[in-house]
Amino acid sequence: MLLSIFTLSEYKSRLQKTKEKMGDEGIDVLLVTDPANINYLSGYNAWSYYTHQLLIVIIDESEPIWVGRGIDESAARYTTWLKNHNIISYSDDYVQSTIKHPMDFVTDLLMEKNQSNRTIAMEYDAYFFTGQNYIILTNNLPNATFKNATNLINWIRIIKSEQEIEYIRRAANIISHTMNAAIEKINAGVRKCDVVADIYQSQISGTEQYGGDYPAFPPLLPSGNKTSACHLTWTDEKFNEGDPVILELAGCHNRYHSPLARTLVIGKPTKEMETLAEVVIEGINEALAAVKPGVTCEEVEMVWRESIKKRGFEKESRIGYSIGLNYPPDWGEHTASLRPGDKTIIQPNMTFHMIPGIWLDDYGIEISESFVVTETGIEILANVERKLFVKESLVY
Amino acid sequence: MLLSIFTLSEYKSRLQKTKEKMGDEGIDVLLVTDPANINYLSGYNAWSYYTHQLLIVIIDESEPIWVGRGIDESAARYTTWLKNHNIISYSDDYVQSTIKHPMDFVTDLLMEKNQSNRTIAMEYDAYFFTGQNYIILTNNLPNATFKNATNLINWIRIIKSEQEIEYIRRAANIISHTMNAAIEKINAGVRKCDVVADIYQSQISGTEQYGGDYPAFPPLLPSGNKTSACHLTWTDEKFNEGDPVILELAGCHNRYHSPLARTLVIGKPTKEMETLAEVVIEGINEALAAVKPGVTCEEVEMVWRESIKKRGFEKESRIGYSIGLNYPPDWGEHTASLRPGDKTIIQPNMTFHMIPGIWLDDYGIEISESFVVTETGIEILANVERKLFVKESLVY
Repeated sequence: MLLSIFTLSEYKSRLQKTKEKMGDEGIDVLLVTDPANINYLSGYNAWSYYTHQLLIVIIDESEPIWVGRGIDESAARYTTWLKNHNIISYSDDYVQSTIKHPMDFVTDLLMEKNQSNRTIAMEYDAYFFTGQNYIILTNNLPNATFKNATNLINWIRIIKSEQEIEYIRRAANIISHTMNAAIEKINAGVRKCDVVADIYQSQISGTEQYGGDYPAFPPLLPSGNKTSACHLTWTDEKFNEGDPVILELAGCHNRYHSPLARTLVIGKPTKEMETLAEVVIEGINEALAAVKPGVTCEEVEMVWRESIKKRGFEKESRIGYSIGLNYPPDWGEHTASLRPGDKTIIQPNMTFHMIPGIWLDDYGIEISESFVVTETGIEILANVERKLFVKESLVY
Repeated sequence: MLLSIFTLSEYKSRLQKTKEKMGDEGIDVLLVTDPANINYLSGYNAWSYYTHQLLIVIIDESEPIWVGRGIDESAARYTTWLKNHNIISYSDDYVQSTIKHPMDFVTDLLMEKNQSNRTIAMEYDAYFFTGQNYIILTNNLPNATFKNATNLINWIRIIKSEQEIEYIRRAANIISHTMNAAIEKINAGVRKCDVVADIYQSQISGTEQYGGDYPAFPPLLPSGNKTSACHLTWTDEKFNEGDPVILELAGCHNRYHSPLARTLVIGKPTKEMETLAEVVIEGINEALAAVKPGVTCEEVEMVWRESIKKRGFEKESRIGYSIGLNYPPDWGEHTASLRPGDKTIIQPNMTFHMIPGIWLDDYGIEISESFVVTETGIEILANVERKLFVKESLVY
């Protein structure tokens, strides 16, 4: 039982909110498979979600039950606040077997605990809730009623506690110095993998006061015409004179993220690139200024949309999303998005990554900020100049 | 179209083998969602699997179809061998929406291509094939017959080409120097996050000839009594005098892995720890010596089991698994496991990670090797002494 990260009362309050939502939706039993949601309710933190694991929240029981692989039981004992009898593991012959499936174990457990004829909800579209999980659970429990609870807990996560915000601020501090160091290092003739090696070094060593955790995305740094492909990782090729380079990185601390993107050019930017950067910066500045409690996500996006429209640009994809606690493959929370149609009302202690890039056919510009919503506006998290960085090229 | 990693004929041969298996199992259309399987058939490589994406393999079409998010289309153009008309994307309002789901887009596409009344197989238990995917696909295509094709492609991946083995050897070279440097760095008073920062630096910078890629696991390094919890990541705490430390790491190159585990003790190991290390080393040595073409996976595990039994130990979990191409959260291939009941016959050009740790209640020892099966036995991949490392403790 490790309570150095959050207090027991914080975990209990999260559980209480979850049970209230379950009550509202008529859910008796919630099967939680999203690793971030498991962590949020129980504290569980280990790289074990490559085998099936879940948390069972029963509305009339005081603690959730952690279910996972035998060799991960001790990780559950070390990282959660749960009593030992609520940490239950399956034997290793269930692992990646074609004969036995961990969800068979789970349904046996639900029957044993007399939960098999209740209303059971599952996170149908969460990353580690597979089709096979769905098939086995519904087949094995013919007397249960099933509901979809995708993102039920994610919507509770959207409002952060002071302690969570403190961890996000630490992550921001880490990413500020990491981003500045990466921009300093990138130049023509330098291998991309060597830049990324230094980025990781900085992300993980953190500061003298606190270390960094692994972010949910690896560093993204497309360059040259590949800046139009924003999710490419790196190679061992060298950067070239004239390359635009996009860096999208996050700091991470206790699994809380603060992402940040910047664009730089090695050598002299073209006139079009300079103009595009101006458009993006003007757009993000205006959109950031529009964020305050009471406005909706789509209203914020509209400010960006109008801003770039004046300059003749349009962009289809969303310009931001809620961030916080997470595991690979995503640091986004899958709740509020800054995009048309999203009527989520912005409230204090929400945290967002606003990343309004524009990608043309052969290059793109991304300049982003993560922020906390305050009572009156926002607190920008990182501290890196908001501009198109230009690297004087070196003779090499 | 990037063919610097594998030749077009290698991709076509992989596709051909997939179609043969599909034919054997009566499958007309295979929906591939496992990111490693997508990469294996098409070359696609980007950090975009946090939104739904898939590859559609139609048995009587010459190329698969890549389907993903609009902003990832250019990544598909850069990294796959597919013609542009086989790269099809959905608009951004499908992303993490509660109204529209990418599988609606996929079923529309299957109908448009007259595939909606055929036998369609999906990877029911693959990581990014969600319950929601299953529900939508089966509901939207009432005239199709559905089959489970979990691991169909994984079983093709189990035999590696020479080029794949070359990449795994490079990954092994990277992990050899990374592991030695990490062992050198760990000592009482050193923060764990600083050791991990150096591990990442070394994993990613690779060698002068080639760089490293992000491994599918972050570095695992439980210490002290937490060595009994093998999947814990790190904190910013310092190592202590007397701590046992387990390091489980991999080198990665072009997404191919070579994992390796070693255990060290800071200061003088206890007699029990020394004995446990001897037992593990004797066991792994005997099990490695038993691997050659023609023996089964369970026969190899039995050699380990008998070896440790002589010394009074038993271990329930599997002692190894097939490795190769992969993405987080797993570098294992989900096919052959070295464990009782696995009758897979070992063949040349298979690659395994044999990791026969023993975890007691309050500490554990892991000493592993990755290897390639040759015509007559094995080639050990990494080059790190197979022993319990003992760190002379420093005054600090």
